[in-house]
Order: sequence, then structure tokens, then C-alpha cells
Amino acid sequence: MPIITLTTDFGASHYVGAVKGVIYSLCSKTQVVDITHKIQKFNIRQAAYVLHASAPYFPRGTIHLVVVDPGVGTERRGIVLKTRDHYYVGPDNGVFSFAEFEKAWEILLPSKSATFHGRDVFAPAAARLACGEAPENLGREIREIRRIKFSEAALKQDKISGEVIFADDFGSLITNIPRETINKAKIKPGAELSLKLKNRKHRIRFVETYGFAKKGELICLIGSSGFVEIAVNQGSAAKKLKAQGGEKVEIKIGA
Amino acid sequence: MPIITLTTDFGASHYVGAVKGVIYSLCSKTQVVDITHKIQKFNIRQAAYVLHASAPYFPRGTIHLVVVDPGVGTERRGIVLKTRDHYYVGPDNGVFSFAEFEKAWEILLPSKSATFHGRDVFAPAAARLACGEAPENLGREIREIRRIKFSEAALKQDKISGEVIFADDFGSLITNIPRETINKAKIKPGAELSLKLKNRKHRIRFVETYGFAKKGELICLIGSSGFVEIAVNQGSAAKKLKAQGGEKVEIKIGA
Amino acid sequence: MPIITLTTDFGASHYVGAVKGVIYSLCSKTQVVDITHKIQKFNIRQAAYVLHASAPYFPRGTIHLVVVDPGVGTERRGIVLKTRDHYYVGPDNGVFSFAEFEKAWEILLPSKSATFHGRDVFAPAAARLACGEAPENLGREIREIRRIKFSEAALKQDKISGEVIFADDFGSLITNIPRETINKAKIKPGAELSLKLKNRKHRIRFVETYGFAKKGELICLIGSSGFVEIAVNQGSAAKKLKAQGGEKVEIKIGA
Repeated sequence: MPIITLTTDFGASHYVGAVKGVIYSLCSKTQVVDITHKIQKFNIRQAAYVLHASAPYFPRGTIHLVVVDPGVGTERRGIVLKTRDHYYVGPDNGVFSFAEFEKAWEILLPSKSATFHGRDVFAPAAARLACGEAPENLGREIREIRRIKFSEAALKQDKISGEVIFADDFGSLITNIPRETINKAKIKPGAELSLKLKNRKHRIRFVETYGFAKKGELICLIGSSGFVEIAVNQGSAAKKLKAQGGEKVEIKIGA
Repeated sequence: MPIITLTTDFGASHYVGAVKGVIYSLCSKTQVVDITHKIQKFNIRQAAYVLHASAPYFPRGTIHLVVVDPGVGTERRGIVLKTRDHYYVGPDNGVFSFAEFEKAWEILLPSKSATFHGRDVFAPAAARLACGEAPENLGREIREIRRIKFSEAALKQDKISGEVIFADDFGSLITNIPRETINKAKIKPGAELSLKLKNRKHRIRFVETYGFAKKGELICLIGSSGFVEIAVNQGSAAKKLKAQGGEKVEIKIGA
Repeated sequence: MPIITLTTDFGASHYVGAVKGVIYSLCSKTQVVDITHKIQKFNIRQAAYVLHASAPYFPRGTIHLVVVDPGVGTERRGIVLKTRDHYYVGPDNGVFSFAEFEKAWEILLPSKSATFHGRDVFAPAAARLACGEAPENLGREIREIRRIKFSEAALKQDKISGEVIFADDFGSLITNIPRETINKAKIKPGAELSLKLKNRKHRIRFVETYGFAKKGELICLIGSSGFVEIAVNQGSAAKKLKAQGGEKVEIKIGA
């Protein structure tokens, strides 16, 4: 029983139901699993990250369907990617920036609407893959896909430069600074650091996990995907620092 | 494996879990599929539309369970409808206004609560249908159900009159103006139109899809259910025009 | 096919997907059922109540996974409980305050992160139980778990004292006053009562169900879990009374 996961910015409306209905109508033996329908509207960067942080945990053969699609109906392509373990189906707008694919196809299926390829193109493509059809039948092979540039964090002397990718639902600011950079900088749990964000400086403590901080304390830590996140214990760093994604950050050892 | 879909205004609380638990306890082989739990509280019109726009995509034999039920525990009836392909189960308050049923039954099952027929009456009814029980066993046949009046759009000379049914989660205003009316009025993609809404006039462009508009531009187009929607590209028409459903609209050719 | 239910405060982010992916990877024959991912962040009391009000409706053998876990990575334990019909898996912080367990185990599984035991510890534990592994294999038996004190309602002469547990998604205030106390006080549908909350007095009518009140009327009734709830017909008592949980309430017969 192959799984089809859904990651969309549909929120509350009827679009989720139509996509699920199409899938089950075309491939009744599949199981649709919601990742989230609450991607911020049109936030392709967030969709790419959410997919990156959850898709790999699914079993071999899972098909990941993503519909965050501000360019629907224009000349932007629909694509299918085959990675080592999974398929990815959705618009070629950067939502699959993190996917290391072995093969890729442009989907060439007709759509009865110009505004809802999630229902009319991507859901049928995913369902047909789930029921065993070859991706070759859905379109023509391509070599390249569109990727968003996620800037890389840098360590110079005692200063780490990076950026906030997005704020998660707890208000924690997920950055692009990997665990390895923290290790190279020899920052250890308990270290007092200085954070520069939006031209303001903040004292911040590096901890192992939220529970080691006082309630309301500004902290940073290695998040569950291996990147630094800036957080407030039982609060929201996004609110406290008025950040939401895209901001440059500098972290320095010493207060 | 028959599917039971859920469309409710339960939002975040425990009511969703209780309904699912009852269903799986009574019919373990069914699969419960969430359409949405985010219908605006008590918004029967929105529930009717959401169901109309997603239910038909599900496979033959699907049972659609709707719990938007401000009249629970009063004399309003619970009903089962059989359409050509599906069953519908829920309160007889207008949520099934769009359903063309072949047969209908009033549910006559006892309820242990006066406030939660979703759990105590509708979930058991849906589960029993899913496991093959005849609807005749759930109550007595009826001839009529309650339907909400959705006003019909009209075209007079160069003016289309209609109304906003509701705002979807993107803030697009779904109207009751069908594609046919646009065709009759000979409005073509690219046409400049004049929109009157809440006693204000707006210039608005008719386009094929969102991506053909500038970011922030006010546009209208044929939405994925075949009705005109008023939208802002990558923004919210509901916010921009301060509309949320029920408003009269007039669309005229020419700016 | 055993069910694993999910009750979390993850909201919109990628954490839900990672947990589901881990479960399906370890036990493909299980079915994951969302109860809610919208527990108020870190609200252990609400999680305990939501679980109490929905978990019992699920079939025998269901495994209830709860991740509301502000103490993740600290010395708080992860636990598995076996009740008569179900398993419960999650942090030992009070979320299982209502569970009457027959046996309990501290989970002793390694975690690759310090911040996401939902993915790294609880999801694997639940999946292994779903696929038939004995709880003894997951850790060591324990005798006691942590329970939150929910104060008990009291009836003295004509006055009932209790407290608001939390506000549900409709804005209804769920109290700890059971049906039995209302019966003992001989309060009947239609009775005019006096409610004291946050040092203000309100006239309030006791009714059988919402639909028997005027739109906007402040009422109280026996909710679907057998406890008194304070509600506004088609409105929000939480907004009207500015209450959200934890407030003391006094209900008196007579206006």
C-alpha cells in the first residue's frame, strides 16, 4: 500500500478534499497522509524546507505531492522526480530545491482548469504512480529543475553569519547554520553568545534543549534537523524578535 | 474499503477525535478522510459549498459525513441521503443543499448527549453504512430535505449581478456567477471590467489564472469549480475589499 | 490493523510529517489517525482533557501517541501505559493524568536529537507496539506516573464551586462540574442561575442544548463529556467572559 503525502498551503478550504477525492478515485489502494496544509500562502521556501525535514522519514516508495503553486496555469512546468527512495510530484518552482533526484520528468497531462493543477494534474499523476504506472507515461524526461538559492552559513574567526529560513509554528527561528559550524566554532552547551538580528544585539545562551532554559529566556540550540534554531523557552522568538524568515543573523562567542 | 469523509466546524478541539474513534470502533475496515475541520463556525452555506466542490471527486460508495450543526438537540432532523454514487449523513439544516438525492431517510437513532450528535448519531450511522448496513435500518424514508436558497446570478445587457458565497482560505471571493454567464456576456481573458461591491467601484481585470496578474493586482477569473472568483494575485481579496460572504456584486464590461 | 492516534501541539510545521513518516517506516500496516495538532502550545492540561474525551471511543488495541512536551530532552521520562483497552505513549508530564493504567513502563530508547523525542523516541515506541512488540522491550516497568491535579467541584447548600478547565475551539468553557453535581443541586433545564466568574456576576440559563437558547445568549449545559460547559449560542463564551482556562466559577440557583 503506497503512501501519498500532501504538503500544501490550502489551509481550511475545499481544495484539500478535491485532491484527496481524485487520488482515491484513481488509486483506491493508496493511503493519503497529511504532512501539513498550513504552509504560509505561496511560501515556496518554507514548503521546500518542510518537505526536506519530513519526507525522508517516510517508507521507500512514498510519493510526496506538494501544492504551493502561485504560478499555476502559467508556463511554469509540473514535474515528477525520482530520488533513491521516493517520488516527488508538484510545480517546478523551487519546492523541490533540496531533492537529489536520479531522474526527472515534465508532466504532460491536460488540465480542465487553469487554477487548480493540484486537483487536475498533480493528484492524477501521483495516483497513477501509486498504482504502479511508469513516470515515463506521464510526460517527457528533463535534466534540470528550478532550485531556490538557500545561502550558506559562514564561519570567520569567532563570528558565524547565516540567515533565518523561516519561523516554525512554535515561533522558533530555523536558520541555515548547521551543527558542523557550531562544532567548528567550539561552541558548547551553556555558552553565552551574542546574536545580531535586524540591527539589534541580543544576549543569547546556547543550550542542549528548551527545558534547560528559564521560561521566556532567549536561547539557541541545534534543532531536530541539525540546524541552529533561535527560540524562547515556552514562548515565541518570532514574536520577541519580530522575525519571520529571510533575516540575516550573526552569532558571536561572548556576550 | 469504503471511505468516510469528514467536513466539520470542530477546529482544534477533541470533537474530531471522538467522531473518528466511534467510526473506527464500529467499522474497522473503513478509512476516515478529513476534508476540513475548519468550516467557519455554524456557517452552513460554506459547508454546503465545500461539500459540493469536493465530494463528487471521491470514489463511488464514499460516505460524506458533515457536522456543522448549530441546531443540535432541537427538533432539526438528522438525515441520510443516497445520491447516484455516494451517501451523505448529517443534520437536515441545509448543508446538503446541493445534493441531488435519489432517496432520503430521517435518522432515528437514540443519542446519549443532546449536544454532540456528530459523535452519538451521525458517526454511528455513517459507520454502519460503511460496513454494509441498509439505510432503511437507520430510520424512516422521507421525501424532502431542507435547502438553503442560493440566489442565482443574472445577466442584463452588459451587467452581471450575483453574490459572494464565501471567502476561501486564500481570501478569494467565490461568487455564484457561473462560467456560462461569462461566456454569454462575451467576456474574454484580458478584459477590463468594473466591479461594484459594498457600494464601491473597482477596476478589475478578467484573467485566465492568478499568475497572469501582477502581484497585488485585483483580478477575477473562472475558479476551479466553474464559478467566478474575485482575487488578488498572491494577496487576499477578502481583506482588500473587506468582504466575507453574502455581499452583492455587479460586474460590468468596461472600466 | 492497529490504529495510532496523534495528539500534539505541533500546529502547522513539519514535525507532524516526520512523526508520521517514522511510524509508517517502522510499521507499515498501522493507520495513523489525527486527533488534533492544535493543542495550545505546551498546554498539558488541555492535552490531558482532549485525550480523556476522545481516546476511549477508539477500538481496543489503539495506541494513543501524545506529544505536548515542553520538557523534552531534560530528565522528564518518556512512558508507555497499558490500560484495559489501549496503549498510551508520550512524555511523563501529566498528559496522561486521566489514564487508569494496569501497567506502566519508562521508555529507554536512545534519541538522536535532544529536542524532538516525538520523532526519535515516542513514534518508534508506538510503531513497535503497533507491530506487536511487547512493551517490556521498550524499557523498564514503573509504578507511578506524574498526574496533574484537577480540582474537584463542590456543592454547598445552593452554591456549586468549580473551575474552567479550558476553552474549546467554539469558545465554550469546559468546567470540572460533573452532571451528578447538577442533579444533586436539582437544577433542571430552563432554570435561571447566577454565575460568578472573574469577580463578575452574570445571569445564565441552564438549557439542554445550544439550540434552545437565543442567538448570543449566555447559557450553561451538560456538555458531551458529562461536564458543565458555559457557552454562548452561536458565539464564544471565552470572548464574552474573557476566560480561557484556570478561572474559578461559582454557580448559584436563582438570578
